[in-house]
Amino acid sequence: MKRSTSAPELLIHLNRSDRRSLRLQLERELRRAIQTGRLPSGSALPASRTLADDLHLSRGVVVEAYEQLRSEGYLTAAAGSATRVAARRATISAPAARARTSIAYRYDFRPGLPDVSLFPRRAWLTAVSRSLSRASSEALDYPPPEGVESAREVLSEYLNRARATASTPARLVVCSGSAQAVSLLCRVLRDHGVRELAVEDPGHTDQCTDIQAMGLSTPRIPVDNQGLSVDILESTRAGAVLVTPAHQYPMGSVLAPERRAALLEWAARRRALVIEDDYDAEYRYDREPVGALQGLAPDLVAYVGSASKVLSPALRLGWLLVPPALAEAVGRAKAGADRGSAALEQLAFADFVERGSFDRHIRRTRRVYRRRRDLLVSALEAHLPRSTLRGVAAGLHVLMELEAGIDEAAVIRLAAGRDIRVYGASAYRATPAAGAPALVLGYGNLQEEDIVPGVRQLADVVDECRPRRKQHRGRPERVRSARPAQSAH
Amino acid sequence: MKRSTSAPELLIHLNRSDRRSLRLQLERELRRAIQTGRLPSGSALPASRTLADDLHLSRGVVVEAYEQLRSEGYLTAAAGSATRVAARRATISAPAARARTSIAYRYDFRPGLPDVSLFPRRAWLTAVSRSLSRASSEALDYPPPEGVESAREVLSEYLNRARATASTPARLVVCSGSAQAVSLLCRVLRDHGVRELAVEDPGHTDQCTDIQAMGLSTPRIPVDNQGLSVDILESTRAGAVLVTPAHQYPMGSVLAPERRAALLEWAARRRALVIEDDYDAEYRYDREPVGALQGLAPDLVAYVGSASKVLSPALRLGWLLVPPALAEAVGRAKAGADRGSAALEQLAFADFVERGSFDRHIRRTRRVYRRRRDLLVSALEAHLPRSTLRGVAAGLHVLMELEAGIDEAAVIRLAAGRDIRVYGASAYRATPAAGAPALVLGYGNLQEEDIVPGVRQLADVVDECRPRRKQHRGRPERVRSARPAQSAH
Repeated sequence: MKRSTSAPELLIHLNRSDRRSLRLQLERELRRAIQTGRLPSGSALPASRTLADDLHLSRGVVVEAYEQLRSEGYLTAAAGSATRVAARRATISAPAARARTSIAYRYDFRPGLPDVSLFPRRAWLTAVSRSLSRASSEALDYPPPEGVESAREVLSEYLNRARATASTPARLVVCSGSAQAVSLLCRVLRDHGVRELAVEDPGHTDQCTDIQAMGLSTPRIPVDNQGLSVDILESTRAGAVLVTPAHQYPMGSVLAPERRAALLEWAARRRALVIEDDYDAEYRYDREPVGALQGLAPDLVAYVGSASKVLSPALRLGWLLVPPALAEAVGRAKAGADRGSAALEQLAFADFVERGSFDRHIRRTRRVYRRRRDLLVSALEAHLPRSTLRGVAAGLHVLMELEAGIDEAAVIRLAAGRDIRVYGASAYRATPAAGAPALVLGYGNLQEEDIVPGVRQLADVVDECRPRRKQHRGRPERVRSARPAQSAH
Repeated sequence: MKRSTSAPELLIHLNRSDRRSLRLQLERELRRAIQTGRLPSGSALPASRTLADDLHLSRGVVVEAYEQLRSEGYLTAAAGSATRVAARRATISAPAARARTSIAYRYDFRPGLPDVSLFPRRAWLTAVSRSLSRASSEALDYPPPEGVESAREVLSEYLNRARATASTPARLVVCSGSAQAVSLLCRVLRDHGVRELAVEDPGHTDQCTDIQAMGLSTPRIPVDNQGLSVDILESTRAGAVLVTPAHQYPMGSVLAPERRAALLEWAARRRALVIEDDYDAEYRYDREPVGALQGLAPDLVAYVGSASKVLSPALRLGWLLVPPALAEAVGRAKAGADRGSAALEQLAFADFVERGSFDRHIRRTRRVYRRRRDLLVSALEAHLPRSTLRGVAAGLHVLMELEAGIDEAAVIRLAAGRDIRVYGASAYRATPAAGAPALVLGYGNLQEEDIVPGVRQLADVVDECRPRRKQHRGRPERVRSARPAQSAH
C-alpha cells in the first residue's frame, strides 16, 4: 500500500449536477477556502493525485486548478515540494491570541501549586512508553467509567499503604482531578435528596462556587486551631460536609482526635456523608502523619485525592473512594459526565506508582519543600517577628497572621506594586472582614533563592502598612519610591 | 543528596505520650497493617534507616521491630534485599477482580468502535515525547479550562480544513470525549431555561439517557432517508436538538439540503440551538463529503466531535465548538466539571495533528475500513439477498433491514448461541417495535478474514428465523445443532 506523505485532509464539495465544469468548481472552492482562512497561509495542499482520488476527478483537473490558483497568487509551488497557500494572503478575523490573564510577578507566593519545574518528565515518559507498549487492544476500547481495573488496584494499594485508607478497587473511581470528584459527589448527593453541603470557613472558595453551581447550598462552618467546629455543624441541616482533616485549607490545622470522633458520630447519626479532601497530605515535615479519616469509617466517608500537588495539576488525575452504598451511583454519574477518564494516562500512572517512581518523587520533593519551608519560616521570623505563623508543619503553604491593625488589602495592593504577589486570607472566608488580617503564603512553586529576598521586601511592605502617628503617615512610601530599582526585576 | 531506592511511602502512627514503648507501638502498627491487608503479601518495607528518619526514631528501634515481626512470620528478609511482607498471610476481604461484563464473541458486529488494534502506538508515543520535552513549565500548571491555547489553534485549523467548520480557538472547548461535550451543553442549556432537547429517533440511546439525567426531557423526532423530520420538530417546544447530519446514527442517512436549511431556519426563528454530533464524518467512501452544518451557521450550531472513532475512545479526547454567545457559559461549566482536560494529552494531540500524523492515520484507516465495508456489503448481498442495506457509503457500520416477518430479537438470540454478536435496531428506537426488523452491523473492529464467515453464519441464523409452514418449524435448528463444531471457535 502506498503511503502518501503529503495528504492533508481537505473538505471540498463539488456538485456534479452543476452546469459549471468541475475544474471551475474546484478552483472556486479552493479560492474561497483560502479567502476565508479555512486554508491558512503556508498550509500544504494535498498532492494532485491524492486530491483527484478523493474527489473522483482525473488528475489533470486538479493540476490545472492548482496552476490557475498559482497564477492568481493564491498558491505557491517550489519544484519538488508540496503546493502551499501563499504567504501574503490575510486570513479572516482570526483574533489575536488572547494573553494569559495571569501576570508573572517577581515573587509569587501563590498557594496550592507544587513546583511544576520538578515534574519528573523522563520518568513519566518512561511510564507512558512502557504502559502503552504493554497495553492490550482492549485497553484502547472505551474504558470502564469508574477507571481501568489494574490502575485502581495499584492506586488502592498505594492509598492503603501511604494514607491508611480502607480502599478496594471496587470503591475507587478515577476522576479528572479532585474537582470532578467533588462535582460527581454533588450530583449523587442531590439525586439522593441532599440540599445542603457544609463547607469549612475559611476554606476553598472555588470548591464552594462549584458546589453551589451544582444546586446545593453551602452552610459555612467555622474552623479553629482544632479544625472544623463540629458542634456548629450539628446546628445545620446539612446532609454532607466537605473537610480537610489532615491539613486544613488554608489554616493548616489538623482535625483534633475528639473532633474526628465527633464528626464521624454526627455522620452516623444523621446518615450524612463526610467528604474528606486529602489534597496535600503527602507533604508533612515535622509532625506525626495523620491517617485518612476514611480508613476509620469507610461507610461514612468519601475520600478525595489527586496527583495535582505531587506531580502536576496539568495531568488532571484524581481519585475518589466512596462508601459501598454510593459506588454504583457515582459510577453512573461518572459515565454520564464523560464515560470515564483517559485510559492511557491511568495505565501510565499505575506503572509510575507500581515501579516506585511516585514514592521516590514524593520523597525527593518533600526534601525540597521542607528546605523551602525552613527558609521561609526563618525569614518570616527574622523579618516579620510581630506576625504569627500557623500550619508550618505540613503542606505547601503557611498562614501568616499579621499584627492587629494592619490592613490586609493594603498589604496585597502595595506588594503588587513592588512586583510581589501575596494572597489574603479574607478571600477564603465567608465574611471577608471576619478574621484577623492574614496572608496565605505558598512556597511550593517559589524558588529557594527567591525566598529570603521576597520575604525581606514583603516585610518592608508590611512595615509601611503599619499604622503610625499622623506626622509619619505616608513617609516610608515616599522613601521607598525614591529607589524603585531595588524592587523591580 | 542520598537517593533512597527502596523507600515506599508508609503511614505509621506513633503516639509519643503513650506509655508503651515506641518499639512496641511500631510493631503493633506494622502487624495491624499486615493483618488488615494495608501491607499486602510480597510488598517491600522501607529500609530501616529511611523509616527511622520518617518517624524520628533511632534506627535500632526499627531494626528490632522488623526482627520481631520476622520471627513472628509476618516479614521475610533475604540477605541483601528489602524486607518484605511474608507471602502466606491472607489479606482481608479483597474481592476477586471483577470479570469484565463483556464476553468475547467469535464474530462481534459491534457498531461505534474503530479497530483499536490499528492505534498508531509508535506515532502517538513520539507525539507524547516531543510535546512533553517542548512543554513549558507553565504548561504543567492548571490548564485553561477551555483547553490549551496552542492545541485549540491546531484543532481549529484542522476542523476548518477537513470539516468546513467556522472555528476559532475562542469558540473551541477541549472536552473529555464527545459525551462530556453534550453533558456541558445540557448544563448550559438548562441554566438558560431550556427544558426540552429533541433527539433523533432512531438515535443514540446512551446520549438520550445522559441528557435525561441532566434534567432535560428528550422529545424524539423521527428520522427517514432524508434525515431528521424537521416539520415534526416544529411541533415540539424543544429549545435545542441533537442531530447527526453528516451520517445519521444508526440509519446512515445524510441530512438532505432542504432539511438542513429548514433546520437552521427553525433554530433562528425559535432562538434554539442545533447540536451537531459529527461522530464519524472522517469515514466516507463513495459519496460526496458533507461539510459541517456549523460552518453554515456558527451562531446557531454547537459542533461536537472526538478522536474516539479515528484513534481510540480510550483517549477521551473530544471537542466542542460553540456559538460565541455560549462560549463563556460553556467554559465556566467545563471549569466547574473538572477544571479543564489533561494538558499533556492535548499537547500530544496537537503535535500529532500538526505533523500530519492524524491525517495520515485517517487516510490509512479509511482504506482499511473501505475494504471491510466492501467485503461486508458483497457478503451480505450474496448471503442475505432479501434484506435491504442502508448507509453503506460512509461510517463504520451499515444498517440491514431484515425481510418483513423476521423476529429481530430471535435473530439476535439465536446468533448469540452461535457465538455471533449482532445488535438490533429496536434498541435505538423510542418504541422498539415501531420499525422494520433490522440489525446495525459495525465493521470497524471486525477483522477482514472474519467478515465472510461471519456473514455466512449470520445468514444461516436469519434463514432459521424465517417463518415457515408448520411442518418445517424447528427442523433446520436440529440439523444445525447436529454439527456444532462448525460454528464454535
